[in-house]
Amino acid sequence: MDSCIFCKIIAGEIPSSKVYEDDKVLAFLDISQTTPGHTLVVPKEHVRNVLEMSEKTALELSSRLPKLARAVKSATNAKGLNILNNNEEVAGQSVFHAHIHLIPRYDSNDELSITFTEHEPDFDALAKLAQKIANEVTA
Amino acid sequence: MDSCIFCKIIAGEIPSSKVYEDDKVLAFLDISQTTPGHTLVVPKEHVRNVLEMSEKTALELSSRLPKLARAVKSATNAKGLNILNNNEEVAGQSVFHAHIHLIPRYDSNDELSITFTEHEPDFDALAKLAQKIANEVTA
Repeated sequence: MDSCIFCKIIAGEIPSSKVYEDDKVLAFLDISQTTPGHTLVVPKEHVRNVLEMSEKTALELSSRLPKLARAVKSATNAKGLNILNNNEEVAGQSVFHAHIHLIPRYDSNDELSITFTEHEPDFDALAKLAQKIANEVTA
Repeated sequence: MDSCIFCKIIAGEIPSSKVYEDDKVLAFLDISQTTPGHTLVVPKEHVRNVLEMSEKTALELSSRLPKLARAVKSATNAKGLNILNNNEEVAGQSVFHAHIHLIPRYDSNDELSITFTEHEPDFDALAKLAQKIANEVTA
């Protein structure tokens, strides 16, 4: 993928602030640092996002997350951490090479804002929707 | 963990709208449905969050995510999907049993709001911070 900025970072053609590298995964600081320590974890294999990811790549990528999350929190003395992954433009994906954001949190009013709107449950509708998704899992 | 609501759901003591279950992982609809199809994926093992998770549990949990993410998107005809995980109260964690949110997205103005503040990079500071985190990974 000649045009992929993360492939260029992985190949060393563009510099990055690396925090971890092995044969399958690279982690480096996000250049725009939503909070100090904001890290991106990417598979070396070019894959668009988690929706197109194999189970094997998910395993390789995810097995590194707890130790990387602990290292980011520990090095920054953060109080907590969000792990975020955006799939497709509607979800905020802007680079189309799968990446996981590790964002340390210092204060609930710091510069990452995540707002979940809540709704009263309609249990009949939930049961029907759950069955529909369950059918897709096994399809 | 007698007091853990997710352990009670896993044990079947509290009903849920299940979308997937195997020996290690349960997925069910979030009762407050930020967007239609909002699903929680939890390890059956009680663990506080990813910061306290073993590599083994991370592997078990994460290997199911691509197929579950695809099933949620497909069943709901969403255009994209966010995968979120909140660690500690400062990051928005409210149930202290690790859980991954799968949130289908229909529109970038729908009822999940994620705002990343961006900052101009200070490359010297980034290099120092990257090294500090790298030291923690191998500590």
